[in-house]
Amino acid sequence: MRPSKRAPDAMRKVTLERAVARYAEGSCLVTFGETKVLCTASLEERGPPWLRGSGKGWITAEYSMLPRATHERTRREVNSGKPSGRTQEIQRLIGRSLRAVTNLPAIGEKQISIDCDVLQADGGTRTAAITGAWVALHECFSWMRARSIISVDPLRDHVAAVSCGIYKGTPVLDLEYVEDSAADTDANFVMTGKGGIVEVQGTAEQEPFSEEQFLELLRLARGGISELVALQKQTIA
Amino acid sequence: MRPSKRAPDAMRKVTLERAVARYAEGSCLVTFGETKVLCTASLEERGPPWLRGSGKGWITAEYSMLPRATHERTRREVNSGKPSGRTQEIQRLIGRSLRAVTNLPAIGEKQISIDCDVLQADGGTRTAAITGAWVALHECFSWMRARSIISVDPLRDHVAAVSCGIYKGTPVLDLEYVEDSAADTDANFVMTGKGGIVEVQGTAEQEPFSEEQFLELLRLARGGISELVALQKQTIA
Amino acid sequence: MRPSKRAPDAMRKVTLERAVARYAEGSCLVTFGETKVLCTASLEERGPPWLRGSGKGWITAEYSMLPRATHERTRREVNSGKPSGRTQEIQRLIGRSLRAVTNLPAIGEKQISIDCDVLQADGGTRTAAITGAWVALHECFSWMRARSIISVDPLRDHVAAVSCGIYKGTPVLDLEYVEDSAADTDANFVMTGKGGIVEVQGTAEQEPFSEEQFLELLRLARGGISELVALQKQTIA
Amino acid sequence: MRPSKRAPDAMRKVTLERAVARYAEGSCLVTFGETKVLCTASLEERGPPWLRGSGKGWITAEYSMLPRATHERTRREVNSGKPSGRTQEIQRLIGRSLRAVTNLPAIGEKQISIDCDVLQADGGTRTAAITGAWVALHECFSWMRARSIISVDPLRDHVAAVSCGIYKGTPVLDLEYVEDSAADTDANFVMTGKGGIVEVQGTAEQEPFSEEQFLELLRLARGGISELVALQKQTIA
Amino acid sequence: MRPSKRAPDAMRKVTLERAVARYAEGSCLVTFGETKVLCTASLEERGPPWLRGSGKGWITAEYSMLPRATHERTRREVNSGKPSGRTQEIQRLIGRSLRAVTNLPAIGEKQISIDCDVLQADGGTRTAAITGAWVALHECFSWMRARSIISVDPLRDHVAAVSCGIYKGTPVLDLEYVEDSAADTDANFVMTGKGGIVEVQGTAEQEPFSEEQFLELLRLARGGISELVALQKQTIA
Amino acid sequence: MRPSKRAPDAMRKVTLERAVARYAEGSCLVTFGETKVLCTASLEERGPPWLRGSGKGWITAEYSMLPRATHERTRREVNSGKPSGRTQEIQRLIGRSLRAVTNLPAIGEKQISIDCDVLQADGGTRTAAITGAWVALHECFSWMRARSIISVDPLRDHVAAVSCGIYKGTPVLDLEYVEDSAADTDANFVMTGKGGIVEVQGTAEQEPFSEEQFLELLRLARGGISELVALQKQTIA
Repeated sequence: MRPSKRAPDAMRKVTLERAVARYAEGSCLVTFGETKVLCTASLEERGPPWLRGSGKGWITAEYSMLPRATHERTRREVNSGKPSGRTQEIQRLIGRSLRAVTNLPAIGEKQISIDCDVLQADGGTRTAAITGAWVALHECFSWMRARSIISVDPLRDHVAAVSCGIYKGTPVLDLEYVEDSAADTDANFVMTGKGGIVEVQGTAEQEPFSEEQFLELLRLARGGISELVALQKQTIA
Repeated sequence: MRPSKRAPDAMRKVTLERAVARYAEGSCLVTFGETKVLCTASLEERGPPWLRGSGKGWITAEYSMLPRATHERTRREVNSGKPSGRTQEIQRLIGRSLRAVTNLPAIGEKQISIDCDVLQADGGTRTAAITGAWVALHECFSWMRARSIISVDPLRDHVAAVSCGIYKGTPVLDLEYVEDSAADTDANFVMTGKGGIVEVQGTAEQEPFSEEQFLELLRLARGGISELVALQKQTIA
Repeated sequence: MRPSKRAPDAMRKVTLERAVARYAEGSCLVTFGETKVLCTASLEERGPPWLRGSGKGWITAEYSMLPRATHERTRREVNSGKPSGRTQEIQRLIGRSLRAVTNLPAIGEKQISIDCDVLQADGGTRTAAITGAWVALHECFSWMRARSIISVDPLRDHVAAVSCGIYKGTPVLDLEYVEDSAADTDANFVMTGKGGIVEVQGTAEQEPFSEEQFLELLRLARGGISELVALQKQTIA
Repeated sequence: MRPSKRAPDAMRKVTLERAVARYAEGSCLVTFGETKVLCTASLEERGPPWLRGSGKGWITAEYSMLPRATHERTRREVNSGKPSGRTQEIQRLIGRSLRAVTNLPAIGEKQISIDCDVLQADGGTRTAAITGAWVALHECFSWMRARSIISVDPLRDHVAAVSCGIYKGTPVLDLEYVEDSAADTDANFVMTGKGGIVEVQGTAEQEPFSEEQFLELLRLARGGISELVALQKQTIA
Repeated sequence: MRPSKRAPDAMRKVTLERAVARYAEGSCLVTFGETKVLCTASLEERGPPWLRGSGKGWITAEYSMLPRATHERTRREVNSGKPSGRTQEIQRLIGRSLRAVTNLPAIGEKQISIDCDVLQADGGTRTAAITGAWVALHECFSWMRARSIISVDPLRDHVAAVSCGIYKGTPVLDLEYVEDSAADTDANFVMTGKGGIVEVQGTAEQEPFSEEQFLELLRLARGGISELVALQKQTIA
Repeated sequence: MRPSKRAPDAMRKVTLERAVARYAEGSCLVTFGETKVLCTASLEERGPPWLRGSGKGWITAEYSMLPRATHERTRREVNSGKPSGRTQEIQRLIGRSLRAVTNLPAIGEKQISIDCDVLQADGGTRTAAITGAWVALHECFSWMRARSIISVDPLRDHVAAVSCGIYKGTPVLDLEYVEDSAADTDANFVMTGKGGIVEVQGTAEQEPFSEEQFLELLRLARGGISELVALQKQTIA
């Protein structure tokens, strides 16, 4: 029995609210249960120097948690002078996931900066961030098309993400913090609207896992992500 | 005429919403018009080493802006390796202001960490932060009293803050971003519920100002702060 | 046809040479073709403070490349003041992989530091590092047993790693640099001697990949890793 | 009674000695009692990139204390990797104060760097620094006029600064270290030769202060600053 | 009696192996007994901006030790955010020594980066590094001549280095770690093939040394360096 | 002919003024011509942790230049986040030189911090710093003896330093900036009152130098240092 009494294949309540940031070209507040992430997409005046002459655009992402997003207060990373290894892993993952469904030349030589700031953290912050960031990015592209900065939609597909894990021997979908802390195996899946896999990460926290277990996690993720994509479609409609 | 058509002595619409962060001991979402700051108060398990044996507690504050709180995206300070001078000035001001109305020995040898994260910035973020942080701190102390961690309320008075400035020759209260950018003189006032002055900062951006002008700014601030204190009282009631 | 003319399921020539560092408690020079990594295992006099009283040991790992391990000279990370995101991802992966097959309480409250320094880089440095680091760790534990610092072998199983990818549409094993640069999908697998999965990471560089493709990569990896484990057994015999 | 037996409205002995640094375009050694600050003004070959095309110049300031300027040795800030928050506040204050009395377009697109290095610290270092920096800046402009780099004097007025505070209930002028440490309220005033206010900063260290007290501090400051301006006039004569 | 039973004027066994790094334009693995340093010379696509228009090239050097090159594991400098003072002294020394025998204009406006990475450290790492780096640099220039990037050999002479010291009262050549730790005086000499002195560094660790002692160290060094130069000649033949 | 018209073996005018810093336990303002260095010696309440239980004391040194000590303004090192390689070399040299003439166990388990801050730089700042620091250290030990913190003088001898170089083919003593910039060879010598050599550093800037030239530099240095030691004796008398 899961702490939340959810069925093994049940997501938490997920909401996607767009146009929440007054000044950003695109934005989305995503919640997976008690996890809340504010995602913004900013069209940057000037991209990195290597974009010039490349004939394509770029999408980069940054991720951060408010100090008291967590059960215990977490030290601000600015005070240790650099983003932690975990933060860097997550920002690289978000950027790769979004670029995988984007036609970069269609953006022109511009950079979109995605910011995912975790307001509250109850597990699954990186997967919520990817799911919400896609909505913010979509809104940013709409803003750009409305101003004729681009002529076609650079998005080739949806992308969304969910975590799975083996909790007390049972594969379960969308772990919240208490499950995540106790899980034997923790996996994150990023998939497209058409069901293609963009990123798979599975880690044995204690005992190694079997191929069968991993395939069951993948099956759960596929179900969760199709729900997320459906909600994305509804949100941008 | 002010851009917002407000009277010179009119505040923007201010709201204080408490208990907005699930895990923090105290929290408050404060808005001054389009400026939005999330304030949390965290009781830290362990304070700085110099607290031990001092017989009193400490309140410290940190301040940050989300990158896209602003009209143009602002670079995260973690990427330059350290908080900017402006950030440090503001965090020191918030901490001093709260400590000025707190009976530190009544906290015991504990530290309360205040976090003020600007979700949206339209001028006056530091004064909104002080005003909201007081509510978060009050809630944190209530939480501690409910658990008998402290026996008396360490707060001796309210504290709130507002900015004033000379905009196109006229002293005005509670500047929003477009006014602030164009103001000749910019001043921040921090006062207590009883009307004592905790902090005064006035800066001539262009022309030096006169004592008369400064006293007019002080008069405006007094009016604004008494409204803010009234709202704080209503919020914690 | 692969640039090296290898069959899709063929590893490069792999060598594991142990006892190569005069002062380290354990060491191994591992080569996967032209990729060369020097792995050392150091028993640290003093572990991190949180080990004390925990009743168990810890294994941590650091990874670095010599500046001219690569085709073009790479800037030393010390000159940018911090390990890059990629470096941090890899060190975390190596540490997790080794801990997954170690009985940490059997080490006592000590820390083993693994250093993986890439002398020459032709793709697959992180998987070579994991494979070689296991040998260095094994040697370190033998050294400790010979001196009665520990009484039983803390290693519960072998662990080894290999990369796979989809190169020009074909799933292939153990990518070298030119393949890796051109691959559509890049995946790293870490498995135990008994065939359990410790870590799976798959990334679509361009086109998302299908479940079938991913399973084929997993099948290739299983074959490669069983060869690596056999070589580890031979090396420590 | 003040520790120094000075009357409440008495400044310490102040000296301003100009042309003390052989290589700087302008310099001044300022002493307020035992506080000694070496101020230099350097005409920079190259200003910040944003000056180009702006049609005006810039004045920036840096502040530092020698480690043993203080009663106890203070750690060098270079060893903590960055200027402290206090240092940054002070350098920003010095720069703003000087710019407030300077006709920036008259400098041309050049930068003047002011360096204020505290050789000995007995309270009031920032106010001494501002007062001496004005003399160094004046000397630098004279140097530039003598070489026809500029044709008119960019200085529109004098600027000087002094601290005041409430010491044992009495408002006093120009606090030395022992008074400053014990003062209830600490305020710094920066004013022009014509009596305009450039900057006001007042902080309640313990008890909030009243408007009346603040006005009395302002009155004291006005007296002190008029003495400082008289001394500046005498120095540059 | 020296720990190694060597005569006072006997070098350890020295080897120079060139062309050891597959991708570098020049490389040399140098060993002085158990001290092993991998030296590479990299022709950089782009030198520092100040090279442009200077009409000459530049040689810069970096030095690092693998963490377990040493008897006890040494912390990686990247984790303290900057090269240590010792590392910087050594890299400056290597660069100066090589530049002293190079005709810099003959390189053109290019930069050669020398990397000296200590694989194993048993005393004398900086002198081994200089001696091996010369071979790597020579190989790099041959590579450049073969491709007509330069037309004449920029090397004007050999350069090599050795350490000497006063161990238990006796001047000895080429100190290994145990001697170095116990030596009263430690000196490093860098000389050319023609016997000119490029750099002399002598330090009294305990007792000051006399001119006579210093001259004896110089005599020993001269002997050792002539052996090293002979070996360099043999290596590049 | 030297720019200053000095004879090759003539020092600049040297002055040593002690007790110049009000709060330091020892201090000395040293001038070598236009080079001016303020040296202080501070008895630290708490030394580094490794001093405890060692039975001896420690002397450490820090060196810095004011930004406008130099002909052109130099950037503060705090702004690049760390001391430069040159600064670190010099601080290590000053510390070693002073420790070489000090009986460290006689200090007890305390640390003396030497600060050498260059107020004006016209060549030879490091040698002036060592010469002046000895006086500051002597004064600090007198202060400690007067308070019975130590019972015997830990100083075993004087130590002083001077630079020499080959300027337009002629060996000369005590180089000022214009000579130093143009010198072929630059050498620094640190010697004791009894004539023992503590440190020798000689560098060929262009052409290697011969043993004969080096011995001539040593002879010049010996003369200069004996003058400096005589002046130290006079200063502390």
